Amino acid sequence: MIPLAFNLFYAGENSLGANIIEKLNLESAQFEIRQFPDGESYVRVDSEVANRKVILIANLHQPDHKFLCLAYLCETLKELGAAHITLISPYLPYMRQDIRFKPGEAVTSRIFARYLSGLVDKLITIDPHLHRYNSLDEIYSIPTTVLSANRLIADWIKQNVNAPLIIGPDSESAQWAAETAELVGCPHLVLEKTRHGDRDVEIAMPDISHLKDHSPVLVDDIISTGRTMIQTAQELRKLGLKTPTCIGVHALFSDDAFCKMKDSNIMQIVTCDTIPHKTNGVSCSPLLEDLV
Amino acid sequence: MIPLAFNLFYAGENSLGANIIEKLNLESAQFEIRQFPDGESYVRVDSEVANRKVILIANLHQPDHKFLCLAYLCETLKELGAAHITLISPYLPYMRQDIRFKPGEAVTSRIFARYLSGLVDKLITIDPHLHRYNSLDEIYSIPTTVLSANRLIADWIKQNVNAPLIIGPDSESAQWAAETAELVGCPHLVLEKTRHGDRDVEIAMPDISHLKDHSPVLVDDIISTGRTMIQTAQELRKLGLKTPTCIGVHALFSDDAFCKMKDSNIMQIVTCDTIPHKTNGVSCSPLLEDLV
Repeated sequence: MIPLAFNLFYAGENSLGANIIEKLNLESAQFEIRQFPDGESYVRVDSEVANRKVILIANLHQPDHKFLCLAYLCETLKELGAAHITLISPYLPYMRQDIRFKPGEAVTSRIFARYLSGLVDKLITIDPHLHRYNSLDEIYSIPTTVLSANRLIADWIKQNVNAPLIIGPDSESAQWAAETAELVGCPHLVLEKTRHGDRDVEIAMPDISHLKDHSPVLVDDIISTGRTMIQTAQELRKLGLKTPTCIGVHALFSDDAFCKMKDSNIMQIVTCDTIPHKTNGVSCSPLLEDLV
Repeated sequence: MIPLAFNLFYAGENSLGANIIEKLNLESAQFEIRQFPDGESYVRVDSEVANRKVILIANLHQPDHKFLCLAYLCETLKELGAAHITLISPYLPYMRQDIRFKPGEAVTSRIFARYLSGLVDKLITIDPHLHRYNSLDEIYSIPTTVLSANRLIADWIKQNVNAPLIIGPDSESAQWAAETAELVGCPHLVLEKTRHGDRDVEIAMPDISHLKDHSPVLVDDIISTGRTMIQTAQELRKLGLKTPTCIGVHALFSDDAFCKMKDSNIMQIVTCDTIPHKTNGVSCSPLLEDLV
């Protein structure tokens, strides 16, 4: 029997959730999730789930107000006898607080991972923000599969950019920029970023004036405030380089980040569709085709 | 050593949270809860909590986006060695979905209760919406204390209303209206309400024209959409009764409920301060003075 798929928090016919269900030829579950007038969630599963394998495809960006819905759904699926629950969370939230930077901090990545591990039997995600953790196994007690959008992004660059130069905006993106450059077959460099606060970063730019004939491509796993991208693009402009293309896997675009990046008029912006956004240019559904 | 108190989601110097801390002479905890630009929560406990008794005073109205914050705080308090955690949730959310009305529904009251029971050691609340459950013990596995605002409301009525007639708008409020009337020492009646949807109710009004000299006081545990109150007030006006006073313990006021009630100009509205709202006229802090 084919798995029963729940498309959660991915609206629209062309969303990643809808694409995965179509490409994998899954059965779309009938269900209802809505909010009562007092903000509490109502969840109802209308499909028969007993003894069935269930796949949840969930956009968990902005996770706080979605968590209880997801939890209610998982608990109810288990009560109704679902045989196995796989969560596909293309963007995996709560990966950034990975240690106690200051005394007394909640290490939210560990707590969130423990909660998700209690709700589902398996997790599939794309390019999680693994910085101090080497693997999701350090915090998730369930089997996890980590996919990378690197090859899809490399293909996009090959098709759309002449003489690319891959630029990783900080040390966290070093390995990622190197891999992308290798897949594209082009040079790369990694910049040094100093963070002064959630929304305040400083970029140190090496002399790259000898690379003026290349088309800079900034790559990062997450575009959040966009300041790193904007500052880097400004530095590239000062050095006389071409207008860069900024590619992010996960289109978080916090606050007014997208407007600021767009209004700066010094970059082209492309993202993968793990989080729905108008900049989505790379579909991640091919990654999942052989996996479920 | 006096307990360490965390005032959660109660803003303002005169909120119930601040009042409880002051009246019970608790030590205010130093802590930080904020949202990152991507909507994820940051939680940090700055006070020394090891081996201490901790009290969380939390306004859990609109619970979904608050739940993870509360959970992160509780898990972190335990990691830091807190000896005992009491949650004072003056308004207890997720009490209304108390059975599976339709097949496949999440019985959110049970799931939410199980989650809270895993986070804290004790729960104190005021007038929870106990309809099909006889006691919180049916769904909470931790010790619970249920307080009632009835006496405070009765005192308010005695001081502010001449010749009151207590009216319970539906069968769910029957016992509650009777108790209030007994405390006030005045007559009461209970109406029949038929619910056609989340926001659609119908009221059956008996002939009460012989009670025209009384001042009607509508009492209910929750004011949510306000339709029950508005419809009842309209019926009372048709019958020629005086302008009613509507008293609710929990000021949920979903959607534009408060504006509609106010604009109808056919009632005075008073609530307890379990949920902060401009109609708060009855402080519940006296209920908690002997309890912690």
